[in-house]
Amino acid sequence: MRIVVLAGGIGGARFLRGLKRAVPDADVTVIGNTGDDIHLFGLKVCPDLDTVMYTLGGGIDEEQGWGRSDETFHLKEELAAYGVGPDWFGLGDRDFATHIVRTQMLGAGFPLSAVTEALCDRWQPGVRLIPMTDDRVETHVAVELDGERKAVHFQEYWVRLRASVPAQAVVPVGAEQAKPAPGVLEAIGEADVILFPPSNPVVSVGTILAVPGIREAIADAGVPVVGLSPIVGDAPVRGMADKVLAAVGVESTAAAVAEHYGSGLLDGWLVDTVDAAAVERVEEAGIRCRAVPLMMTDVDAAAGMAREALALAEEVRTA
Amino acid sequence: MRIVVLAGGIGGARFLRGLKRAVPDADVTVIGNTGDDIHLFGLKVCPDLDTVMYTLGGGIDEEQGWGRSDETFHLKEELAAYGVGPDWFGLGDRDFATHIVRTQMLGAGFPLSAVTEALCDRWQPGVRLIPMTDDRVETHVAVELDGERKAVHFQEYWVRLRASVPAQAVVPVGAEQAKPAPGVLEAIGEADVILFPPSNPVVSVGTILAVPGIREAIADAGVPVVGLSPIVGDAPVRGMADKVLAAVGVESTAAAVAEHYGSGLLDGWLVDTVDAAAVERVEEAGIRCRAVPLMMTDVDAAAGMAREALALAEEVRTA
Repeated sequence: MRIVVLAGGIGGARFLRGLKRAVPDADVTVIGNTGDDIHLFGLKVCPDLDTVMYTLGGGIDEEQGWGRSDETFHLKEELAAYGVGPDWFGLGDRDFATHIVRTQMLGAGFPLSAVTEALCDRWQPGVRLIPMTDDRVETHVAVELDGERKAVHFQEYWVRLRASVPAQAVVPVGAEQAKPAPGVLEAIGEADVILFPPSNPVVSVGTILAVPGIREAIADAGVPVVGLSPIVGDAPVRGMADKVLAAVGVESTAAAVAEHYGSGLLDGWLVDTVDAAAVERVEEAGIRCRAVPLMMTDVDAAAGMAREALALAEEVRTA
Repeated sequence: MRIVVLAGGIGGARFLRGLKRAVPDADVTVIGNTGDDIHLFGLKVCPDLDTVMYTLGGGIDEEQGWGRSDETFHLKEELAAYGVGPDWFGLGDRDFATHIVRTQMLGAGFPLSAVTEALCDRWQPGVRLIPMTDDRVETHVAVELDGERKAVHFQEYWVRLRASVPAQAVVPVGAEQAKPAPGVLEAIGEADVILFPPSNPVVSVGTILAVPGIREAIADAGVPVVGLSPIVGDAPVRGMADKVLAAVGVESTAAAVAEHYGSGLLDGWLVDTVDAAAVERVEEAGIRCRAVPLMMTDVDAAAGMAREALALAEEVRTA
């Protein structure tokens, strides 16, 4: 079975680990969000790609869900001692190595997709991880700060400001000119099922879908497209999805996110059991819907969710 | 008193610490060797400048004489796990910060001298540290490896090969086109005394002297120029100076090194007490010479050596 998954960071990575446990022999291609990428200290940092790679490769800090296990922060301390910022982005000593290797390879002329493949050579995530694009896309968030409207990098909004001010708009700068990375459209075209994990629908899955060609390829693939709600009981399972949903005029409910994707893209949608009442509304929108437990408390729970998603995909296929 | 010191790495740095203790109120300008500089992992590393800066700024690993105190090597371990080399150069997590800040500033267009000043803002070494040049000079060593003659970077010869094969030639590549960094010639011109610490006469002091204009400025300064022998009892006090002395046809003795500098440059020379017999030969070469203890066992010993060097300079001045 060939499965394509559009993944953001922590939620996507943890779902993928469940999927690998549920169907260890499946051929999984992950299309990773790169809108969160940021240049820090002259280095190219790809938080979402790395979270997927570290999580599936066994190098993740389990507790926080991002960054490396057994990590130290001496380099960061020293940068602060030099007065060189930003100091709000948590780069650890081990993590720095990934960004240094990536930056060197990019500098040598390799596209990000080739660099990601090289990094995965070490981590052996058990999936094929492809960035959504080799081109530069940077998610900016329009906010009002000190009475002034300005656009900040997504990481500045998310990590530095902790989404403490309303997002007025979310713009994947450069997306319109971006091309899907080599292998992205091919993987979608050859997929038996396409999954949207409980990743952020705006700044993770939404950014991937903003790369021209990807949304269309998924809609035209002719295979079941099934998503899992990142909203449980009107609140994000983790992260601050509600903050950016408001910016695109979508209410923070499991049903509204499904409608936001739309029946032209989505065939099936899983909501949590606490949102069972949303099933009817989602199905009225033309999207097959089931209510199942959606809390990824551990790998087994994530595997259970993956099985439910694949079961719903099968239901769609045979309907 | 204005003192100019031409410094390499460990020997120069330790001597400077002694000099600061001996004459705390002196105005000391250090012209640092940059021929050892190397690009590693896309970062500009300046081992000699950093050794001086860390040693005088209180950040040095006292035992090994280079690198940072309280250091960890997690980033380096990870680079090795990615299969990215070289693995023979000991960059620690804290040390990496210096190279990242430097590389960013160079990338932003600042010359190395301005970058060094900025780094010293943090370390407050108590001296003015200026790289010999803002231009790229790279010391290469010609060796025979596996029956083939090739040129390797100085660090490869020194650190990777541990100077285990004979150096057939030592070439400061780029030196001929290099210009002294801003402030170098001015400092020499305004100096009351110029000192050559017990640094390597070929790859440290020799490289600095290879930048056109520096040797001439020192010779024409009209102030005492006093050096300290890095060779004690026919062997280098530390390091492998003998290996590179052979390449320039100089025997590994305190007297031969003085003659190598020559009376056109050097006015005074200190040899260790075990080399007292060399005094006569050095003085015959037209260089005033004294035999004093030259082992920098601690800061007090280094301070004693500095006092002896300044006393000899005073002797030269009043002679």
